[in-house]
Amino acid sequence: MIKFCLVGAGFIGPVHAANVAAHADAHLSWVIDLNLSSARTLAAKCGARASSDLGDALADPDVRAVIICTPPRTHAAIIDAAARAGKAIFCEKPVDLELAQVDACARVLAQTGVPFHVGFNRRFDPTHRALHDAIRDGEIGRPEMLILSSRDPEISPPDYVAAMPYGIFYDTMIHDFDMLRWLLDDEPVEIYARTACMLDPGENPHRDPDTAMVMLRMAKGALVHVNSSFRAVYGYDQRIEAFGAKGMLMSGNQTPTTLERHGSDGVRRDPLLHFFIDRYAESYRRELDAFIRAVESRAKPPIGIDDGRRALMIAEAGVKSARSGVPVALQA
Amino acid sequence: MIKFCLVGAGFIGPVHAANVAAHADAHLSWVIDLNLSSARTLAAKCGARASSDLGDALADPDVRAVIICTPPRTHAAIIDAAARAGKAIFCEKPVDLELAQVDACARVLAQTGVPFHVGFNRRFDPTHRALHDAIRDGEIGRPEMLILSSRDPEISPPDYVAAMPYGIFYDTMIHDFDMLRWLLDDEPVEIYARTACMLDPGENPHRDPDTAMVMLRMAKGALVHVNSSFRAVYGYDQRIEAFGAKGMLMSGNQTPTTLERHGSDGVRRDPLLHFFIDRYAESYRRELDAFIRAVESRAKPPIGIDDGRRALMIAEAGVKSARSGVPVALQA
Amino acid sequence: MIKFCLVGAGFIGPVHAANVAAHADAHLSWVIDLNLSSARTLAAKCGARASSDLGDALADPDVRAVIICTPPRTHAAIIDAAARAGKAIFCEKPVDLELAQVDACARVLAQTGVPFHVGFNRRFDPTHRALHDAIRDGEIGRPEMLILSSRDPEISPPDYVAAMPYGIFYDTMIHDFDMLRWLLDDEPVEIYARTACMLDPGENPHRDPDTAMVMLRMAKGALVHVNSSFRAVYGYDQRIEAFGAKGMLMSGNQTPTTLERHGSDGVRRDPLLHFFIDRYAESYRRELDAFIRAVESRAKPPIGIDDGRRALMIAEAGVKSARSGVPVALQA
Amino acid sequence: MIKFCLVGAGFIGPVHAANVAAHADAHLSWVIDLNLSSARTLAAKCGARASSDLGDALADPDVRAVIICTPPRTHAAIIDAAARAGKAIFCEKPVDLELAQVDACARVLAQTGVPFHVGFNRRFDPTHRALHDAIRDGEIGRPEMLILSSRDPEISPPDYVAAMPYGIFYDTMIHDFDMLRWLLDDEPVEIYARTACMLDPGENPHRDPDTAMVMLRMAKGALVHVNSSFRAVYGYDQRIEAFGAKGMLMSGNQTPTTLERHGSDGVRRDPLLHFFIDRYAESYRRELDAFIRAVESRAKPPIGIDDGRRALMIAEAGVKSARSGVPVALQA
Repeated sequence: MIKFCLVGAGFIGPVHAANVAAHADAHLSWVIDLNLSSARTLAAKCGARASSDLGDALADPDVRAVIICTPPRTHAAIIDAAARAGKAIFCEKPVDLELAQVDACARVLAQTGVPFHVGFNRRFDPTHRALHDAIRDGEIGRPEMLILSSRDPEISPPDYVAAMPYGIFYDTMIHDFDMLRWLLDDEPVEIYARTACMLDPGENPHRDPDTAMVMLRMAKGALVHVNSSFRAVYGYDQRIEAFGAKGMLMSGNQTPTTLERHGSDGVRRDPLLHFFIDRYAESYRRELDAFIRAVESRAKPPIGIDDGRRALMIAEAGVKSARSGVPVALQA
Repeated sequence: MIKFCLVGAGFIGPVHAANVAAHADAHLSWVIDLNLSSARTLAAKCGARASSDLGDALADPDVRAVIICTPPRTHAAIIDAAARAGKAIFCEKPVDLELAQVDACARVLAQTGVPFHVGFNRRFDPTHRALHDAIRDGEIGRPEMLILSSRDPEISPPDYVAAMPYGIFYDTMIHDFDMLRWLLDDEPVEIYARTACMLDPGENPHRDPDTAMVMLRMAKGALVHVNSSFRAVYGYDQRIEAFGAKGMLMSGNQTPTTLERHGSDGVRRDPLLHFFIDRYAESYRRELDAFIRAVESRAKPPIGIDDGRRALMIAEAGVKSARSGVPVALQA
Repeated sequence: MIKFCLVGAGFIGPVHAANVAAHADAHLSWVIDLNLSSARTLAAKCGARASSDLGDALADPDVRAVIICTPPRTHAAIIDAAARAGKAIFCEKPVDLELAQVDACARVLAQTGVPFHVGFNRRFDPTHRALHDAIRDGEIGRPEMLILSSRDPEISPPDYVAAMPYGIFYDTMIHDFDMLRWLLDDEPVEIYARTACMLDPGENPHRDPDTAMVMLRMAKGALVHVNSSFRAVYGYDQRIEAFGAKGMLMSGNQTPTTLERHGSDGVRRDPLLHFFIDRYAESYRRELDAFIRAVESRAKPPIGIDDGRRALMIAEAGVKSARSGVPVALQA
Repeated sequence: MIKFCLVGAGFIGPVHAANVAAHADAHLSWVIDLNLSSARTLAAKCGARASSDLGDALADPDVRAVIICTPPRTHAAIIDAAARAGKAIFCEKPVDLELAQVDACARVLAQTGVPFHVGFNRRFDPTHRALHDAIRDGEIGRPEMLILSSRDPEISPPDYVAAMPYGIFYDTMIHDFDMLRWLLDDEPVEIYARTACMLDPGENPHRDPDTAMVMLRMAKGALVHVNSSFRAVYGYDQRIEAFGAKGMLMSGNQTPTTLERHGSDGVRRDPLLHFFIDRYAESYRRELDAFIRAVESRAKPPIGIDDGRRALMIAEAGVKSARSGVPVALQA
């Protein structure tokens, strides 16, 4: 039984809290949030203790693991404190928005040797993983092209957008930058990106890019396309297509039901799941389980600090390309 | 080059006329219709001669084949005349509505030895045929259950319905009665049928059955279900499902395009093709081609008078069951 | 927080035990099984107490609800005891195999007034329910035909089959008999059934029917077809199709992933989920939740003893028809 | 009745010849090919006259239209001769491989005023066209992203490849460059392209690019992605996806049948149609019909010389980008 402290009671926090609470080998002991009232509400649901001071939980010798769900710019300090307290760490993506900070985290992790995992949950989606495994099993031969569609139904609130310019790279496509590395078992050597502001000023007052297309070349030669939007009105559109010498694999979207409605105007199926937390519910569960099994067996958690660093490097180079209008080289 | 005479310029006649005209090895020489004006209109389109007197065409020694597209009750007399004139015959289904008449046709065909084909066009649909071939190839092992859905978008006009009571058996499901024999390579030994009048009296003033479910047992043991309706508002719904010891096969519907429209209300695809002539355009073409190849090579056309007789026997027994409410035995 | 006693640690028991354990408002206090070792193993996983004597749990005043997962012939006695002990009851289907026993249960339930629910879990499947709701919302107008395919990948072990002759009616299609009542909000007035033994004697040594087709007429006029098999080698095949005056609804199958694999031999998707517990995992969860909410709010649980009785009546009439070869009337 | 002369009896020639022969308002009078034997074989099938000298046909006053199916580098001279002879021209794509030549064609067309059409047949595919019409009807609001997948199952023979370096741009993606202009009703202002040689030297001895990804920005702001390969082993993969402010449209692939095969290893559907002539059979028919209707009604044919010129300009800029590794600007 691993006792957890969860830091950050908003947004994705309750998802992880519920998964910890439901896991047979885990227990949620603490919920920490600067907003004590939020911490208390979530803690009450899961039978945990609440505090606004992370120190309280880190001082609890029963706590073995910390889940970090706070805004990205706060991650590094929490990683530092948790690592020095000897806790295993599950950190939501991105690790940070600055490479220097990620490097600092890498150093403290190396010094302390605590288990560390970055929450690139999509790797744990059953269909994406089946696609990954089919590539590894050689089903499509050498992968030659990879196409990722990664579209959110809605843009984040203006203050969230303001706090993270080019968030479509740092917060959204960073998932795809991780996926392409994982799926192809390869690193990009070049990135070219173009962005646009397609939303109305009312929806996107800061005119931060809300639409993007990216092209990458990988060290082993594959070509990759990523597209992203913050306005897929038809739902959370998440598809992957891998093309290779021997075939093609497609990981499709999810719908609430499989009902088909035949009427005189055609055949209608459900809209896609709208909310990423519904779409990836199963992957969040499986990711936590993988983390718990790693901690229990003293194995390395599946996605390490270097994975977090590499995804951020790609995002950074993508932003550089989008700003300059020319391709940017990356070191494989 | 085979020269054809087409009898019956209405409804399905123009489909066969166009297919003859477009076929490299066929030529339409005559169009016969009691309504001379109809005959002339169709003949003009295809460069054929028109007449209201079948004798004109049968006397033409260049005519090698006759296509019969007139109402069912007129088929027997035309078959008789055409056979005695030594012409090959392509007769639309059903051969007739009375077994005695079909038997009379069988006798004249036996005497004259002319090639004869019944127009159960569905056997020539590429997907239905692929299903048939997969069964023959043993892909699903022994067939155990067969399910046929055979639904028209609209009921025929009242006078057509009045002229053929229980037309849902004699005119519509007779296709399915042929298909089940062909797909299973077997004969039914029992039929049970239930019908209903679901349409409003305005649409179905004669209160002839417009909805039916049928169950059959085959000599080799398979169980068969057929359902039919004259009001599939979503289009011409034609599906076949074959279940066996080693798997299951499904022949699905056809749509005009494969466009998928994703909106906030869901994913929409085209309605099914509405008109049987569109749905089965390819099967009519392939059927005519098979007939022409048989006549040219002096082989037996694919669907003979006995097939027409057997399908009618099943329809007749089905009507008897629907009227009596009890299962009716059939001789395999 | 409702404390549960679960009776019957085999087969479906662990599913309900896990769902109780994971439910925020429920706790599993007791696991009862004549095989004490089975009870202990399951109890240990959920932090419950184990016993081979139901009396132990019924005497526990903290226990508010009993879940009955034992073989059908034992249900009536357990219902009687639990009802007299004042416990709410969640009883797996079928309530019993004899109408007289179900009637006895109905009497004790009426006397004691305890909440009672029959586990027809399929009503809680999200897609089946969406189909149900679409019918209720009038989306297809008056329902005219209903087609249920209900196929298991494997037959039960010989001793299980021997203990319940015609189990394909009493144990499998009883789900469909419940579904057709619920979906159509109507009762059947006639049933006709045909069965076959398609499996080899090695798989089905008792030659109990392993394949069945059933046709029913409903009081309001709809026609219903049910087909069932104990050898769907391609997985657990569970489909519903509702046809009406204004359209058609289809509830389809479930697969582990949505991966599409394109190769030179075609496009391949996952096999269907094989095990009913995987296929209906979500419906079992939702069913338990509905029961808990009913007990908590002192509302009637969703599926009552009369539903259990009606489904059994249909099964019984179906067996009578299958044995006699003629349709059997039912009182609506 | 329009009488045609077809120039070029190889490859795509027989497709157009058969469509002319089958069209009610057209007649194939001449087949011209430098290889007289090829011309004769095709002419014999369609009842046309054969010659190796285009002059023979151009001198025939009955010939109203010429279809040009010869290799691209011969188009300009034939266009010049046909235009000066006053014939309507249907020219296969690309018009030429050099802009200067296309400009020369444009001049002679302007001088002579003969009807001219470039064979970008994909515009006539029913599903692609339905997608186009849905965009025009405002179904997805402003188009924001367009994704075209355009993959051939096989590379052309080495001598064909040698004769047209960067043929993946000039011969294959030129279709997509036309489609994106037509679908978006807009012109690109920038193109970025990356190519690769993924095939073995045995298949691609000239190491001409066999795989490509392209990104374009349109004048009105939309972002476009095109990918192409000469080795889609699973068939001729032709998909279009249009994403906009109000929804998303997908035009999918075509298969020979819709049969679904359910086995223990999953659900299998047909491979995609393999040959572009099968995939686009209907679009070739509709394209010819549109050309005939235009000529008959003295309207402008649907796709003019400027369309051919623009598509070539995009291809040329794409090659320039692929060679230089940087984006290339285009004049809208």
